[in-house]
Amino acid sequence: MIEICEVGPRDGLQNEKKPVSTEEKVHLIEQLIDAGIRKIEAVSFVNQKVVPQMADAEEVMKAVPKREDVTYAGLVLSRSGLERALLTPVDIVHVMIAASDQFNMRNARRTVEQGVAEQTAVMKDAGAAKRPVAGVIGTVFGCPFEGDISISRVLKIADAFLQAGCEQITLADTTGLANPIQVQAVTRAFIDEFGDHTPLGMHFHNTRGLGIANSLAAYQAGVKIFDASIAGLGGCPFAPKAVGNVCTEDLVHMFEQMGIGTGTDLNKLIQTAQWMESVMARPLDGMVYRAVGA
Amino acid sequence: MIEICEVGPRDGLQNEKKPVSTEEKVHLIEQLIDAGIRKIEAVSFVNQKVVPQMADAEEVMKAVPKREDVTYAGLVLSRSGLERALLTPVDIVHVMIAASDQFNMRNARRTVEQGVAEQTAVMKDAGAAKRPVAGVIGTVFGCPFEGDISISRVLKIADAFLQAGCEQITLADTTGLANPIQVQAVTRAFIDEFGDHTPLGMHFHNTRGLGIANSLAAYQAGVKIFDASIAGLGGCPFAPKAVGNVCTEDLVHMFEQMGIGTGTDLNKLIQTAQWMESVMARPLDGMVYRAVGA
Repeated sequence: MIEICEVGPRDGLQNEKKPVSTEEKVHLIEQLIDAGIRKIEAVSFVNQKVVPQMADAEEVMKAVPKREDVTYAGLVLSRSGLERALLTPVDIVHVMIAASDQFNMRNARRTVEQGVAEQTAVMKDAGAAKRPVAGVIGTVFGCPFEGDISISRVLKIADAFLQAGCEQITLADTTGLANPIQVQAVTRAFIDEFGDHTPLGMHFHNTRGLGIANSLAAYQAGVKIFDASIAGLGGCPFAPKAVGNVCTEDLVHMFEQMGIGTGTDLNKLIQTAQWMESVMARPLDGMVYRAVGA
Repeated sequence: MIEICEVGPRDGLQNEKKPVSTEEKVHLIEQLIDAGIRKIEAVSFVNQKVVPQMADAEEVMKAVPKREDVTYAGLVLSRSGLERALLTPVDIVHVMIAASDQFNMRNARRTVEQGVAEQTAVMKDAGAAKRPVAGVIGTVFGCPFEGDISISRVLKIADAFLQAGCEQITLADTTGLANPIQVQAVTRAFIDEFGDHTPLGMHFHNTRGLGIANSLAAYQAGVKIFDASIAGLGGCPFAPKAVGNVCTEDLVHMFEQMGIGTGTDLNKLIQTAQWMESVMARPLDGMVYRAVGA
């Protein structure tokens, strides 16, 4: 049994230039829930000038179905984001930092060390407000500016995050640089360091076609939690090199075919992907939804 | 170290409606060789009314570079195909049959049993003509008409092929139905039956996005020979559900990143994929060649 954390409404949509209405986002989330998805990164609380697609985070969180069995996550990159998140009913706050100095400098004008200090303070504030928090570490498997990232640096950040109260760590391959052997090495190092009781998620992008293979490799090494995006949302029609997250229904198809439960209904996910294609009005990256009938 | 058998010129192009000239095919093959590819399924000897793109098989084989270190394969589906193949300098004849009765009935109006009898006779004739021969078994991992295919049936066909003189068996996932656990089960059963000295190739399609993950799984189970198609050729612009072979440069990228040699130059493969895109005049399925610079 694995758990999917659906990130389509957040990571999937954030780079899309075509505006998606609050109603459409909420309808997407309703369909995902109907298909059995129980964890959804629904919004991010970021500067709307930088990410206009996420400007309606508060409205989305007001309108989504309130259900005991569904966990909504909201992504936060700074204290101001946390302040917004705490005014909404998000069930868990995802606080992120990249493991690369150069990536952090370019995106948030801070080093990793500075970022960890700031973000662990944000995590503690979330905890003080009784809001669960998870830590997301970006560029774990390589940085487009800095190159290789040492596993020890990743483990050090994860340790700081766990000490600050994170109930899960997610390791993200922000620009699709991971390979299966590396994924297994990092996973084993994480489990060696923090034990297999510490919830560990993986967040893969399919930039170089390895999203599914890396997910398989991570599963083989012990990972049970996977971020994924319906229809592989996250590509951008105006930047063909920006490729989306690993595709939810493609990942579900693989695991279900392997006899590994996902708790979801593949046919409903495929219908949701087809609906999403109609909303975006272009072919999306998912393979299974296009193969139906093949 | 793994070996790529490049099938772009044959399986990649055969469904393409846009005519590709003999000169373009030969130039593709020249570029593949320059990139380090040493085995190429260059042509098929089939009815040109059914597969017009392969009508110039003899001309292609006349024009390709003759090199001691390059092996050219030609696909043969019947005795008449073999007769044509033997008049060309193809180094090895690939003789194919599907493991599904219904697939064979629809495509060649014969049962598996009839097909095995006919094709093993073709193999023996090839051997008598001193031409090496390999056996390709299709629909091994599932048939769109018949559903599941038993491993024992696949092993029985492979045994007949080996007894008829095949120096390699390739197991093909004709319509992209394989999953990683199944791939490993079939691979282990094959190795249990025929030993790990019997050359075993895998031929995956990416119809449901699992081509690379299945290749990884096969490698983990002991497979060292992989069919692949430059730029993921094999999709068809007029039939969006027909998806191509696993992509050569994407597969090479994965293995090289994992520290597993392929004997090829990834940059030259990427350049070849980009050239192929210009020939086909549409975006192809490969991910790595589009991610360059991402």
